Parts: sequence; C-alpha cells; structure tokens
Amino acid sequence: MTTPTTTPGYDHDDPALAPSPITPVDLDLLKATVLFGPDDEAALRTAAEVLDGRIEQVLDVWYGFVGSHPHLLAYFSTPDGEPIGDYLDRVRARFALWIVDTCTRPYDERWLAYQNEMALRHTAEKKNKTDGVDSVPHIPLRYLVAFIYPITATIRPFLAAGGHDDEQVEAMFQAWFKSVTMQVTLWSQPYAGTAW
Amino acid sequence: MTTPTTTPGYDHDDPALAPSPITPVDLDLLKATVLFGPDDEAALRTAAEVLDGRIEQVLDVWYGFVGSHPHLLAYFSTPDGEPIGDYLDRVRARFALWIVDTCTRPYDERWLAYQNEMALRHTAEKKNKTDGVDSVPHIPLRYLVAFIYPITATIRPFLAAGGHDDEQVEAMFQAWFKSVTMQVTLWSQPYAGTAW
Ligand code: HEM
Ligand code: HEM
Repeated sequence: MTTPTTTPGYDHDDPALAPSPITPVDLDLLKATVLFGPDDEAALRTAAEVLDGRIEQVLDVWYGFVGSHPHLLAYFSTPDGEPIGDYLDRVRARFALWIVDTCTRPYDERWLAYQNEMALRHTAEKKNKTDGVDSVPHIPLRYLVAFIYPITATIRPFLAAGGHDDEQVEAMFQAWFKSVTMQVTLWSQPYAGTAW
Repeated sequence: MTTPTTTPGYDHDDPALAPSPITPVDLDLLKATVLFGPDDEAALRTAAEVLDGRIEQVLDVWYGFVGSHPHLLAYFSTPDGEPIGDYLDRVRARFALWIVDTCTRPYDERWLAYQNEMALRHTAEKKNKTDGVDSVPHIPLRYLVAFIYPITATIRPFLAAGGHDDEQVEAMFQAWFKSVTMQVTLWSQPYAGTAW
C-alpha cells in the first residue's frame, strides 16, 4: 500500500491545514441525518481490511468509468480536451489514500479540515494548484452529487469479496453509502455558501 | 390513491410552469453519470406497482424520521419551532404523488420543469409560498444532499414486499437510488448557480 507521506499533494496531516468552516456540531447533525453511528464505524474498519489489497482494482473500475465518459474525463484534461496523464496518476494515488481514510480515520476536526481542502480542490479556488496543471478551472457541483451513485454502487462487489456473510457485507455497504453521502454533503459547502 | 388534480399545490401539469434552466442535454449527461437507462425505467414501473397501496406506510417511515429529529422538523415549523400540522399534511400529499411520479413519469422537459419548481420550493425563493405558511425561510442544501441516504435506504423493504425475486428487488432498488441521486442533483442547481 502507498505510504501517505510520500504521496504528492496528500496533506491530511499537514499542521498548516486551515480549519473547516463546518463545526463538529454541524457534523453531528449530518451524521444523525444519514443515520451514521458506531456500528458504521466498526463496519468501515472491517471494510478497510477487505479492501486492502483490492484498492488498485477499485480504482481501475472508477478510472475506467471516468475515462470512458468524455464529459467526465474533461475535468482531468487541458481546456482543449487533452487528458493529462500525470494529473490522472497523481490524483489516483491520493484517491487510494482517501479510500483508506474513509474506512479508518476518526471523523474529527482534522478530518473535517481535510474534507474542506478536498472540497476546495474540486472548485475554482483550488483545482489544478496541488499538481500545477493546466486543466479546466472547476468541477461542477452536479457531478459531485451525481457521483454518489457510482462511487457507492461499484464498491459492493469488492466488499463482498472478503468472504464475509451477507449481513456483514450489507453493513459495510450501508456504512460506505452513508459516509460517501456525508462527504459529498460536506464538499457541497463551498458551492452553496450561506445556503449550505 | 390520491388524484393529482385534487392535491393542493401539486403543479406538475400546470401549463404555466416555467421551463427548467437545465436542458435535456444536461439531463442526458446526468443520466450517463448515474448509469440510468431503459432497464431502470422498466424497474421503476415495476416499483410503482409494488409501492401502490404501500405509499402511506413509506410516508409514515419518512415522516417518523423527520418528526423524531428536531433539526429536521424545524423546516416544517414556525421560526419559533412550533410544527405546522397543516403544512406537514399538505406536503405529505404532494410527497405521495412524487413517489408515483418518480416511478412512472417520463423524465422529459415537463418533468424537468417540475423538478425545477420542487427545487425552488426548498429554497428561499419559493419555500412556504405554495401553502401560505409562516415557516423558516429555506432548507439548507446540506440536508437535501444528505437525504439521499434515508430516502434510498428506507425504500428497500417496501420494494421487497411485493414477492419479486432478489434480482428484481435489487434492480428496483438500484433504479430508485439512481433516480433519487439524479433528482437531488437537479435540486442542487438553484443553490449553486453558475458553479452547478
Ligand atoms: C463522490 C464524489 C467524489 C469523490 C469521493 C472524489 C474523490 C476525490 C479525491 C479523494 C481526490 C483527491 C483529494 C486530494 O487531493 O487528496 C479528488 C480529486 C479530484 N477529483 Fe474527485 N471525487 C468525486 C467527484 C469527482 C468528479 C465528479 C470529478 C469529475 C470527473 C472529479 C475529478 C477530480 C479531479 C480533477 C481531482 C483533482 C483536483 C485537483 O486539481 O486537486 N471528482 N477527488
Ligand atoms: C432526497 C431529498 C428530498 C426529497 C426527495 C424531497 C421531496 C419533497 C417533495 C416531493 C416535496 C413536495 C414538492 C411539491 O410541492 O410538489 C417536498 C417539499 C418539502 N420538503 Fe422536501 N425533499 C427532500 C429533502 C428535504 C429535506 C432535507 C427537508 C428538511 C427537513 C425537506 C422539507 C420539505 C419541506 C418543508 C417542503 C415544503 C416546501 C414548500 O414550502 O413548498 N425536504 N420535498
């Protein structure tokens, strides 16, 4: 598995990270809204074990999906529509760590701060800066929200591949679905401002 | 089942409805992003049959969920926090029709126009107007996005109650999940403006 500290642009543990505008109280209300609790945390820890060793395969599926849809690949491309290989690769390495973080990190203020950073990296404020690339300026909110579906649905077979019984697989799947929904909710904040 | 034309404020077929700012081309790209296709349409038609006669029970679950969370019930309440019974009832009747529409309507320009209207009814621009109530001015985007989880997860047992086999229930569930994700995506448009 990739070591966090050697992944370019992965700043989860950077002490200089700005705090999130979202408070732990806001987060607790969001958790209640998606019914996220201790059982989900436990299920995600199990998911981390199941996904360990399968992360490159998960990323192959997701990158295959993006790569086969020009309207999505555009966001990893130059304004002229030329895919930027180095950009795709560097983001992929951070994406791998995101899967692990989703399953293993406590959802605390540091996590909130990096959630905010990841959100901004999809917007005009910070997209392209981390990797110093000349790509299109931002990712529209619509595709972030819509991605809840593929990012959730495609994980199921991988969660089922660890030999757990149906009930355990279902628990991991539900926890993943809740977490992805919650994270996209957090990432919608810079897009909506005060209406968030 | 409730007859559309007698439900106060249900304006799906109102010829005066303003067109959506979202084009059919935008919608096609969204459908591709959530992998929504003809099989999903067919599965939703079956879901309509299964849910027919169970809609009040679905609404009992959803309203029970909202009613048991003060931070959610607040949006059906006066600014002082007093729930408005008449508001809850009138929206509930329109919600019942939304379930049917989600499963049976073609997702065409008329549907897009009413999607836009429903979106606006969650925002400061139109909330409270349809029912002439004195409630809080808008629903924050965060809860719209977060609701993808409960509105999706809670439907599954109802879809399973019609005696269909596992594969058919799964197809109905996936189609529902895609549709809800797509509709919330559409509803996020007035919150994000040009960044949508
Ligand atoms: C469920 C929704 C999504 C999730 C969970 C997700 C996840 C991620 C993660 C983990 C990163 C790396 C963050 C970091 O720098 O550490 C990232 C960056 C990126 N994502 Fe997403 N993403 C989502 C939606 C999208 C969509 C719809 C697109 C458009 C095709 C997209 C394109 C990108 C791009 C271009 C970057 C690099 C941004 C930069 O310049 O720093 N993402 N995403
Ligand atoms: C998946 C997300 C959601 C869906 C599918 C949904 C569905 C609906 C539907 C179908 C209506 C009636 C539309 C019409 O007038 O015909 C409605 C209105 C309403 N919803 Fe939502 N809703 C969602 C999120 C929320 C959330 C998070 C809240 C806050 C608790 C909320 C509170 C309301 C209120 C107060 C109204 C009445 C608005 C008005 O004054 O016209 N909804 N919703």
